[in-house]
Amino acid sequence: MSRIDGRTPDQLRPITIQRGWSKHAEGSVLVSFGDTRVLCTASVTEGVPRWRKGSGEGWVTSEYAMLPRATNTRGDRESVKGRIGGRTHEISRLIGRSLRAVVDYKALGENTIVLDCDVLQADGGTRTAAITGAYVALADAVAWAQGKKLVKAGRKPLTGTVAAVSVGIVDGVPLLDLCYEEDVRAETDMNVVCTGDGRFVEVQGTAEAEPFDRKELNALLDLAVAGCDQLAEIQRAALEATA
Amino acid sequence: MSRIDGRTPDQLRPITIQRGWSKHAEGSVLVSFGDTRVLCTASVTEGVPRWRKGSGEGWVTSEYAMLPRATNTRGDRESVKGRIGGRTHEISRLIGRSLRAVVDYKALGENTIVLDCDVLQADGGTRTAAITGAYVALADAVAWAQGKKLVKAGRKPLTGTVAAVSVGIVDGVPLLDLCYEEDVRAETDMNVVCTGDGRFVEVQGTAEAEPFDRKELNALLDLAVAGCDQLAEIQRAALEATA
Amino acid sequence: MSRIDGRTPDQLRPITIQRGWSKHAEGSVLVSFGDTRVLCTASVTEGVPRWRKGSGEGWVTSEYAMLPRATNTRGDRESVKGRIGGRTHEISRLIGRSLRAVVDYKALGENTIVLDCDVLQADGGTRTAAITGAYVALADAVAWAQGKKLVKAGRKPLTGTVAAVSVGIVDGVPLLDLCYEEDVRAETDMNVVCTGDGRFVEVQGTAEAEPFDRKELNALLDLAVAGCDQLAEIQRAALEATA
Amino acid sequence: MSRIDGRTPDQLRPITIQRGWSKHAEGSVLVSFGDTRVLCTASVTEGVPRWRKGSGEGWVTSEYAMLPRATNTRGDRESVKGRIGGRTHEISRLIGRSLRAVVDYKALGENTIVLDCDVLQADGGTRTAAITGAYVALADAVAWAQGKKLVKAGRKPLTGTVAAVSVGIVDGVPLLDLCYEEDVRAETDMNVVCTGDGRFVEVQGTAEAEPFDRKELNALLDLAVAGCDQLAEIQRAALEATA
Amino acid sequence: MSRIDGRTPDQLRPITIQRGWSKHAEGSVLVSFGDTRVLCTASVTEGVPRWRKGSGEGWVTSEYAMLPRATNTRGDRESVKGRIGGRTHEISRLIGRSLRAVVDYKALGENTIVLDCDVLQADGGTRTAAITGAYVALADAVAWAQGKKLVKAGRKPLTGTVAAVSVGIVDGVPLLDLCYEEDVRAETDMNVVCTGDGRFVEVQGTAEAEPFDRKELNALLDLAVAGCDQLAEIQRAALEATA
Amino acid sequence: MSRIDGRTPDQLRPITIQRGWSKHAEGSVLVSFGDTRVLCTASVTEGVPRWRKGSGEGWVTSEYAMLPRATNTRGDRESVKGRIGGRTHEISRLIGRSLRAVVDYKALGENTIVLDCDVLQADGGTRTAAITGAYVALADAVAWAQGKKLVKAGRKPLTGTVAAVSVGIVDGVPLLDLCYEEDVRAETDMNVVCTGDGRFVEVQGTAEAEPFDRKELNALLDLAVAGCDQLAEIQRAALEATA
Repeated sequence: MSRIDGRTPDQLRPITIQRGWSKHAEGSVLVSFGDTRVLCTASVTEGVPRWRKGSGEGWVTSEYAMLPRATNTRGDRESVKGRIGGRTHEISRLIGRSLRAVVDYKALGENTIVLDCDVLQADGGTRTAAITGAYVALADAVAWAQGKKLVKAGRKPLTGTVAAVSVGIVDGVPLLDLCYEEDVRAETDMNVVCTGDGRFVEVQGTAEAEPFDRKELNALLDLAVAGCDQLAEIQRAALEATA
Repeated sequence: MSRIDGRTPDQLRPITIQRGWSKHAEGSVLVSFGDTRVLCTASVTEGVPRWRKGSGEGWVTSEYAMLPRATNTRGDRESVKGRIGGRTHEISRLIGRSLRAVVDYKALGENTIVLDCDVLQADGGTRTAAITGAYVALADAVAWAQGKKLVKAGRKPLTGTVAAVSVGIVDGVPLLDLCYEEDVRAETDMNVVCTGDGRFVEVQGTAEAEPFDRKELNALLDLAVAGCDQLAEIQRAALEATA
Repeated sequence: MSRIDGRTPDQLRPITIQRGWSKHAEGSVLVSFGDTRVLCTASVTEGVPRWRKGSGEGWVTSEYAMLPRATNTRGDRESVKGRIGGRTHEISRLIGRSLRAVVDYKALGENTIVLDCDVLQADGGTRTAAITGAYVALADAVAWAQGKKLVKAGRKPLTGTVAAVSVGIVDGVPLLDLCYEEDVRAETDMNVVCTGDGRFVEVQGTAEAEPFDRKELNALLDLAVAGCDQLAEIQRAALEATA
Repeated sequence: MSRIDGRTPDQLRPITIQRGWSKHAEGSVLVSFGDTRVLCTASVTEGVPRWRKGSGEGWVTSEYAMLPRATNTRGDRESVKGRIGGRTHEISRLIGRSLRAVVDYKALGENTIVLDCDVLQADGGTRTAAITGAYVALADAVAWAQGKKLVKAGRKPLTGTVAAVSVGIVDGVPLLDLCYEEDVRAETDMNVVCTGDGRFVEVQGTAEAEPFDRKELNALLDLAVAGCDQLAEIQRAALEATA
Repeated sequence: MSRIDGRTPDQLRPITIQRGWSKHAEGSVLVSFGDTRVLCTASVTEGVPRWRKGSGEGWVTSEYAMLPRATNTRGDRESVKGRIGGRTHEISRLIGRSLRAVVDYKALGENTIVLDCDVLQADGGTRTAAITGAYVALADAVAWAQGKKLVKAGRKPLTGTVAAVSVGIVDGVPLLDLCYEEDVRAETDMNVVCTGDGRFVEVQGTAEAEPFDRKELNALLDLAVAGCDQLAEIQRAALEATA
Repeated sequence: MSRIDGRTPDQLRPITIQRGWSKHAEGSVLVSFGDTRVLCTASVTEGVPRWRKGSGEGWVTSEYAMLPRATNTRGDRESVKGRIGGRTHEISRLIGRSLRAVVDYKALGENTIVLDCDVLQADGGTRTAAITGAYVALADAVAWAQGKKLVKAGRKPLTGTVAAVSVGIVDGVPLLDLCYEEDVRAETDMNVVCTGDGRFVEVQGTAEAEPFDRKELNALLDLAVAGCDQLAEIQRAALEATA
């Protein structure tokens, strides 16, 4: 079976990670998973929220949003509606949890890093692109903080790397990294977040139409782990390049 | 190893499902998973939201909330804060998706059923108790709608049953149906929603501290499937009893 | 004349006060006035709001709300609408004022008690049931605070008891403790809050259809005072029982 | 005993009712109770809210607000805070109910009249001044609607007149029409709304400090009824003058 | 050509400035530009917003609003809608900037003055009337603060005077101080804020229909400068009169 | 005098207009004025807002926003704050008015075009870059609508072109197209919107520190008109290139 865009079932879309996109942010990445483009900026501030003061520990959090015309039909701005939708909340929380899984708060010290992930163009997999790009922006921000001596010498605030990919079953076939058209048609949809050493940070599978069985679940997990492995490699290469 | 409340690792808390709790709602259940108590009411109205009119299909949705002192320390009311939190949004959406997995919209016809799940007392697993109880309230509401001829004779709006349970790894041991104290200490936390025939509707696993590997994931899934199986049996018994 | 539910004009509905309903709250009561059921929880915290700090005096306040399907037709959640309605505001304020009428702030010391009154099922008289139940929850919370030495030995934060009942004129006849059906048909509706010694804390009478004269007002006040007297007795009995 | 401003206990403050204050509104009154000044405008529109369409009946409603510096210290604007406070809600509802008590919806026909009561300067009794002034603005608006043939010939949309006054017990003495300084010191505070024929539309009495007994309640009601009677006379005189 | 109300193109409407309108505010002015009436109150408080503390400098800000029936058809209240509209925001900011142009923050010391400009009746030019009236209220408030020794002796917090007027092109003719009917028909609309010495604080010109050329712009500026000059004279006269 | 970035006083920053940036929008432009980058998308929908239905005329509107880390220090998201700030409102309205100045609604027919201008990176002049870029996106969207026959053959919905630039006085010298550092230090700041034939659509000048006189105003207008003229040329060149 050939996919809409000619890929094999276990093939990622073309992935690009462009570091240093913004002149202001301490870390910034424009990440693309095919036509999905997300601008990820990392903002470092000294100090932590009130409830964490004096703990000696840092904090990492994230906010996700979509430009109104990132999608095929224009959506209303959440700022205009005056409230954030459930989907936005859910994804912001997912990104934050995923990144925090590789952060050593003690090593970070009382600094806060906010990852803003703004979808400029959406074509499926915006949350997984956001996590994958945000990790790189976070790594750059941590390096910046180390350069500024906000982080004590010898401390490693990052304990590993993290990347994410979507998988799903379309017409009975498990596929890696769904584009929007595939996502809409998927019977089952799963987002998997893995560390660079192949362990799971998040597994979120949803039956969109028909419940799925254990065998299907296993096939999806296999695909996702292999995909995250490739993404980890792309992240590593991006971080080794000169920003 | 003995658990806080003396259970074995694969043992559910005492589960009770009290049907017909409210005189007004078309279906209503007070469900308890140990000290967690959730009031689930199902409200049937003829007609569907505007975007679905004329489709001949029905709609099922859900709203989840917690009373301010359902928890150990009082939380602010979301109505007073003027906005719904991310966690509330996320759980409301999860409950809705879980129930819709066993609904045949065509058979339901242009009727809407809203499941309100209000946590009266919280001790871990409020979302899984809510799903498990809401299914029973939904079944009663569907029966009511059939009795009122809102649903055409011979149509079966429910294609199966659905239940949910939490699992997690505490001190390295996979446990079923975590109470609050266990939940707080869990390294990994997973909520699993299954149909009565043992297939998955939702799998949401999160590494709270340390990422988890494939073996741990499998152990948790095994526990969850067995737990949901028991819950399906309890639901069946409750529905067979006279309301 | 016989009432809808067979009561005499001056007869209360069956009243039950179930203490210790919640395991978390410092005081908690499930109160029933017939089919009206309100869960009242009292939450004690050390300290007072900013504007009262250093005064040596405590604070007591209340929030009232209704579950969406407490009523015959489902109402929208105020948390979802993003704003609290006028009726909710009004009743929350009434409950707070009523309870504060029997509180000695100096004796309470710099502690805050919040009374949450959540209507689980509504059949008329939800605000009067809430006040009557909340007083008992408050008394339990005060006793808890005394046990924890948050209140100085020998101090009595409560100067009396308080209860409330509705009265109204239906088809020209003054009636005590209206159920929903009577309330809808009432020409005049009055809520009366009395202390245990028979004095008034609040009198709120409203002509729903026809203005009322002084004689009718007097008849309603007579009924209400007698009703509150009975409620005070029921409160006393509940507080004397072992929680 | 002499009052702060030299009045006897049963004496109203100087009352003025200035009709035709605004060039735009169908009825408009600047009413003063001493230093309390409220601008009441009545806006007539053809048609009624959706829930009332086709009933052949009209609708009358009211909104009350206070300019930020109407009071001694500046208050935050509710528009800036983004929500209406409980007190504002409560008073808006009271004004609306009070006016509707003398409206014959059938005679009004499917027209809506909104009474805006904006407090320009506050010195106690703003809600009672608002009701008293709004009635006159309403009467002018009804006359305007009759002139425009929006109301059918021969129909009388107003079945009577309505006025309101505050009473309270200060230092043990029942007083009529409290100014702000008296209001702050009152042990008991009551707002009474009467029709021109001396019957009650609303009675709202609150013990601010000490509960009040039946004798005190009666004394307050006597004062209020006499005060409303005088206000009805002032309203009549104002409406007889050329606008 | 004669204007709607008989004025010549370069003639202001009748302007009145009534000081001391409110008993509570430290400065208060009811200003009229023809039928446009704005109540401007100045509220002085010791201290400044958090971000300015310890700077030794004061702060001046403004809020503008319109009563719902200030206009020909009733507008919804922004407090009820729960959000402030763009127009309100824009005008509040304009008034604040205009007044701050003549304030010496150092001389004012750490005091805050809030100017509330509430439109009681609107007939065009509400923002320019508000600025013109607010300046006088500000001057009175500054004098009050000097009398109370909140401002150090010998310090002059006001460095000049400020007034504003609208100009526009109607049927090809540049006109001064547009009333509502003219404003609606204007091809170009401009608001100009000048200091008493004839310099510009704000120039805001907008082509409503057809873009305007440099010559038209110059004609409008000439008219506006002459108008502001007259307004400065009226302000001076008002401030010299006994309040 | 040499400017911070080496420009002469009457020199624009490097301007780039990248058409077709987004695959979804009917028109899309990434515009740069130096380091200021704004993504402008034009969304076409058939039909118009309710208040315009049946008029045969179209509608063009705009929304402006800034990503949280577009600036040097991260700003809170307006969606999270739940309300749009005054500055955002003001700029959105300015962009909309500016574009509408060159739209022939009759020729557009009952179609709506929304221009979203999202600032990805800010370095002064975001509103003027937005207007300049949005015009090009609008032109592309109009061409698209003509291609789709949404616009009748032979109709020209655009009556001209529109561009905008900022000017200001820094250290006494009038400068064209201020970058952020210059903007902060400017004594006077002006935004000018011109049509391609050199007439004015908007002139907004503000004295940030010292009021400005007529001579300074004239110098700024001269600079701005020349700047807009160059921008019109750049727009023309961009639109002639193959998208």
